[in-house]
Amino acid sequence: MGGATFKERIEESSRTKGSNIILALDLTPEEPESLLSKSMRVLEETYRYICALKINRHLVLPLGLFGGVAKILEAAQDLGLPTIMDCKINDVGHTNRVIAEQYFKAGFDAVTANPLVGWEGGLKPVFEVARKAGRGVIILVYMSHKAASEGYGQRVYDPTAGVVKPQYVVFAERALSWGADGAVVGATYPEKIREVHAILERRVPIYSPGVGVQGGSVESAVSSGARYLIVGRSIVLADDPCEAAKSLRERVLKILPGLNKRG
Amino acid sequence: MGGATFKERIEESSRTKGSNIILALDLTPEEPESLLSKSMRVLEETYRYICALKINRHLVLPLGLFGGVAKILEAAQDLGLPTIMDCKINDVGHTNRVIAEQYFKAGFDAVTANPLVGWEGGLKPVFEVARKAGRGVIILVYMSHKAASEGYGQRVYDPTAGVVKPQYVVFAERALSWGADGAVVGATYPEKIREVHAILERRVPIYSPGVGVQGGSVESAVSSGARYLIVGRSIVLADDPCEAAKSLRERVLKILPGLNKRG
Repeated sequence: MGGATFKERIEESSRTKGSNIILALDLTPEEPESLLSKSMRVLEETYRYICALKINRHLVLPLGLFGGVAKILEAAQDLGLPTIMDCKINDVGHTNRVIAEQYFKAGFDAVTANPLVGWEGGLKPVFEVARKAGRGVIILVYMSHKAASEGYGQRVYDPTAGVVKPQYVVFAERALSWGADGAVVGATYPEKIREVHAILERRVPIYSPGVGVQGGSVESAVSSGARYLIVGRSIVLADDPCEAAKSLRERVLKILPGLNKRG
Repeated sequence: MGGATFKERIEESSRTKGSNIILALDLTPEEPESLLSKSMRVLEETYRYICALKINRHLVLPLGLFGGVAKILEAAQDLGLPTIMDCKINDVGHTNRVIAEQYFKAGFDAVTANPLVGWEGGLKPVFEVARKAGRGVIILVYMSHKAASEGYGQRVYDPTAGVVKPQYVVFAERALSWGADGAVVGATYPEKIREVHAILERRVPIYSPGVGVQGGSVESAVSSGARYLIVGRSIVLADDPCEAAKSLRERVLKILPGLNKRG
């Protein structure tokens, strides 16, 4: 799979595993040693039922990118799992470039980024670095929290078309025109998943966080068009993470029985 | 200054130093050992001419937050400099809380955050954590890069007022109503500084990056209403960082001769 894009590699992983679940390893920060061993344990217990691993600042800040996080990435690679750094890049271009380069250097296969910053001197360098390194960029389109309506849901004027449209439509259009590897839409807003899916079709897959603790439902997210489900606390804080991941996968396979067949 | 807010502490530092320059220690990542020693050297060479220190992922990712960065924060504290982590927080609330807690735990006095994510389940936990710890939150209003117009400059519909207004006006209003300790407006857009300053007056000070390498001018940023200038590459990449910081401070004092007097 050396020549494949990130979009193709995670699609392949998902079909091989018969799972569209991305484990968000969002453990509550604590002493580095126990945080690292807990991360490794959850990963080993759940890897059979997931198609990729997502990491956030919950691990990067206490463990260090080239410390504990690099060890987790190595373990994920050994288990054949693509990895995503959920850094939500939203700085100016030269800083965005440094951020992307550092995460890719540590071993991540993809990064997330916020399209609010725009292209020139904004996210362009992130896409350039990613393309050159054969990595992926996933764009935020509509997030899973309550106040998402205040930003992602606001109505903005599109000077090119001369019309007012929702921010998430503008962001979905950017995901398409920039050639993003994915678009994030919260599972807590299945109607937004449906709308964004109508724009992106199968060209940019939808990644959907917010299932479980945040209130989103597996069934409505998937049937609305989410290609991947990002699940954190419902798995990592469960008494039995293995069982939690396995049962989530079974729920997905009930709706998508053909998931583990080639497209 | 134990009971003072971040806004008061940096104001005090600025008047004591007769400088409104915040050093952005944005060195190009390289081997941790030389990156750390270079950071320490630039800090020691420039601290007399600056009022605060800002750190970004250029240092956090290669050095580690509780590794090299904590050492730099300790040195800054010994030199009496308030510190800002330019993390541009823009995740969901429970993650934002973890990010803010980790940066404050490491010793930072303030964090930056993106108001696009809104309040409930968005930035509210960041302000709560900051208030409780006596730290600050600085809000992005208009950034310094070329494509800032595609996001910060877009026109959005305000459902409360029933009017269309620029995104940066909406963000400046959020900075006011949320009680932010500062608002970021790029020095490359002095006319935006002026507009935002007219909204914020002296209630929320304007922090302005983009002087020098990015093309912004000290004089036009300050005369348009910027309270603090954030300067990175023009100092850290100079042959003589000490001289660069000193001469920038002298340019500021020509426009604001009373800077080192009490309000």
